[in-house]
Amino acid sequence: MSEKTFPLTKAELEALSAQYPTPFYLYDEKAIRDHAKRFFAAFSRFPNFREYFAVKACPNPFIMKILADEGIGADCSSLPELILAQKAGLTGEKVMFTSNETPESEYIYANLMQAIINLDDITHIEFLEQALGALPELISFRYNPGPLRDGNALIGKPEEAKYGLTREQIIEAYPAARDRGSKRFGLHTMVASNELDPEYFIETARMLFTLAVEIKETSGISVEFVNLGGGIGIPYKPGQVAVDYDRVAAGIAAAYDEIIKPAGLDPLRICFECGRPFTGPYGWLVTRAIHEKHIYREYIGVDASMADLMRPGMYGAYHHVSVAGKENDAHDKVYDVVGSLCENCDKFAVQRPLPEVEKGDFLIIHDAGAHGRAMGFNYNAKLRAGELLLRSDNKIIEIRRKEQIDDYFATLDFKKLAGFKA
Amino acid sequence: MSEKTFPLTKAELEALSAQYPTPFYLYDEKAIRDHAKRFFAAFSRFPNFREYFAVKACPNPFIMKILADEGIGADCSSLPELILAQKAGLTGEKVMFTSNETPESEYIYANLMQAIINLDDITHIEFLEQALGALPELISFRYNPGPLRDGNALIGKPEEAKYGLTREQIIEAYPAARDRGSKRFGLHTMVASNELDPEYFIETARMLFTLAVEIKETSGISVEFVNLGGGIGIPYKPGQVAVDYDRVAAGIAAAYDEIIKPAGLDPLRICFECGRPFTGPYGWLVTRAIHEKHIYREYIGVDASMADLMRPGMYGAYHHVSVAGKENDAHDKVYDVVGSLCENCDKFAVQRPLPEVEKGDFLIIHDAGAHGRAMGFNYNAKLRAGELLLRSDNKIIEIRRKEQIDDYFATLDFKKLAGFKA
Repeated sequence: MSEKTFPLTKAELEALSAQYPTPFYLYDEKAIRDHAKRFFAAFSRFPNFREYFAVKACPNPFIMKILADEGIGADCSSLPELILAQKAGLTGEKVMFTSNETPESEYIYANLMQAIINLDDITHIEFLEQALGALPELISFRYNPGPLRDGNALIGKPEEAKYGLTREQIIEAYPAARDRGSKRFGLHTMVASNELDPEYFIETARMLFTLAVEIKETSGISVEFVNLGGGIGIPYKPGQVAVDYDRVAAGIAAAYDEIIKPAGLDPLRICFECGRPFTGPYGWLVTRAIHEKHIYREYIGVDASMADLMRPGMYGAYHHVSVAGKENDAHDKVYDVVGSLCENCDKFAVQRPLPEVEKGDFLIIHDAGAHGRAMGFNYNAKLRAGELLLRSDNKIIEIRRKEQIDDYFATLDFKKLAGFKA
Repeated sequence: MSEKTFPLTKAELEALSAQYPTPFYLYDEKAIRDHAKRFFAAFSRFPNFREYFAVKACPNPFIMKILADEGIGADCSSLPELILAQKAGLTGEKVMFTSNETPESEYIYANLMQAIINLDDITHIEFLEQALGALPELISFRYNPGPLRDGNALIGKPEEAKYGLTREQIIEAYPAARDRGSKRFGLHTMVASNELDPEYFIETARMLFTLAVEIKETSGISVEFVNLGGGIGIPYKPGQVAVDYDRVAAGIAAAYDEIIKPAGLDPLRICFECGRPFTGPYGWLVTRAIHEKHIYREYIGVDASMADLMRPGMYGAYHHVSVAGKENDAHDKVYDVVGSLCENCDKFAVQRPLPEVEKGDFLIIHDAGAHGRAMGFNYNAKLRAGELLLRSDNKIIEIRRKEQIDDYFATLDFKKLAGFKA
């Protein structure tokens, strides 16, 4: 059972918000580090095990530096993410570049960083060779099992997904890359998102192990790593259960012994590229009740909006909400907790039992540390929240400032506008 | 029947993209002006008729200046939008401020601009009075009919919508505002979004007219305007039919004669606050095919993504796609046209019949001129497209530059990061 906690008291929030007005994101360094240690405790049994943090989940280089300090690399999907990895001190094979519909310039930059390039399509072999002049020594391919595997609800059916190579193409791709000069190889897939069933990840390992053996049998090529992708979910709802890493590791180890060892592929590096479980539960969006409204329903209006956290509005996703200082009060009111966007889906909670909320109360939106600030937008000219970090020594520092109106106007030329004759 | 056209030839696009690399938005000034003239031709029969452009649809002040030149005001929902209106030369009663969960500072700014403030809730009477010291002379209220009216698919049921005052509250609000000093009054609603049925808008007028009469009967207050809101849709799909403005105007005129005149409320100003039909069909997202992919489906990868245009990914919305120079070719291929975001919903078209697309082809995403660039985000560290304007004299100018990597990094302090000890 997941328990929903928050590291600051109401009095501490009052003091903090005097310096950093709400809304803001707060991340907990110690909790992020503790989770990373738990993760490695389960998976370090595998030779040279690696985790690449999916930067898209929380593209903050301060957080990435903390994760790097825990031995975690970066899974990047675009040029700015590659630069963030570099800024966080990550280069070379600590960086995996997994992208799709990739422009040439991004492959060039990834190659200059000596990041591991993970190709999304067989046609990219030639595209990459032309972009770089030669294929890199180490190359990886993303596998899309298509109808051979069910996806999960969030990511959809693999055969309808735009990602990766088919089974036939995968078998063809490795010798093709070898013929063009690559010498070291990896295999990647990503077939789930926000999945809580541990068996899913064991099944994915089994699928990739079997494919690695087939690649060896058909081409003589031994891949040196399999990247099981991300997709490890988090228990957004109280009562949901986090993925048991020890169980996943044990299941993967059994598959490894059964499939990889007899095929002579041991030692084979296992990798993950999880984002969500590494920061999701350890980041909160803190907002303040600024209005209450009594119409056909009871509403609490807060100073954050869907511009800061899009998951509830976009996916109807559940995020737990607590009221600072009222955690143990009876939840005997039912509210829609809403932001100010002119979209009726801008609701952090719908018909949610909560303690009575008063104007000025702090509302804590839980599990906002992944795919939160990262997915914010500026619709309705809303400005996105900043990010604070609670350090392990209990000091709080700003790691991203709040957007200002001038940021919103940055792409406009008002001087040109003044001279513009309509 | 809507016809999907684009104002530039392939050769012109080639030349343009040498100066402004794809992806970019292009707007057609002449088409925007022609539509505005058609709209006014239908509705100018009403005394002092006004249209307030919903800035959120296309928050570009160059476009707003063109619309202002056609006599159109601004419907703003936030402080930056109010500033954009000002930059476009719109102040005073040419600006309507319709917001919800509004912070005090935004009401203060709107009042300084002498914009018409449209209150979303009855509790905001007191909130506004405290914020401003006194209520403004002119005040408007937003009505939410709740179960008395069906919403439409996009906006949902009114009784589940966070907006506006109930019927009982509306009746109470006007005398309450008068008692606190307001002297002029308006009435507003917004119950549909992207609606194509002309009867819907006539029905809305009838509803507000009846309510205006009831307000007069109960309090003696004559509202001076009714704002029918926005919600006029556009025919995204070929074969759909645009709203017939003349028919809407005739229907509203009949209701006006039937309800408003006998009640002694004539002359009553009619207002709309439409965004979508004013720019939607006259803006295109221009992107280029950079990859093709043949797996379980045929894919065309383009250099734009959901970061530039979110409607297909977010709502599954249809946008027509054409291929420059191949408009009349047989549409004998079936593609998913996809962007580079690591979200499988990043597809501009799904299983869409198109002519054969070659790498380098320009793909035109139609009807992107409203809720397009405005809803873009930076997920996966994607940078949002810029905006170009085809002027009435056929010159093309840049009216918003493309985002740069430095824009994406603007809220980060890399110096602080360098000194940050993880």
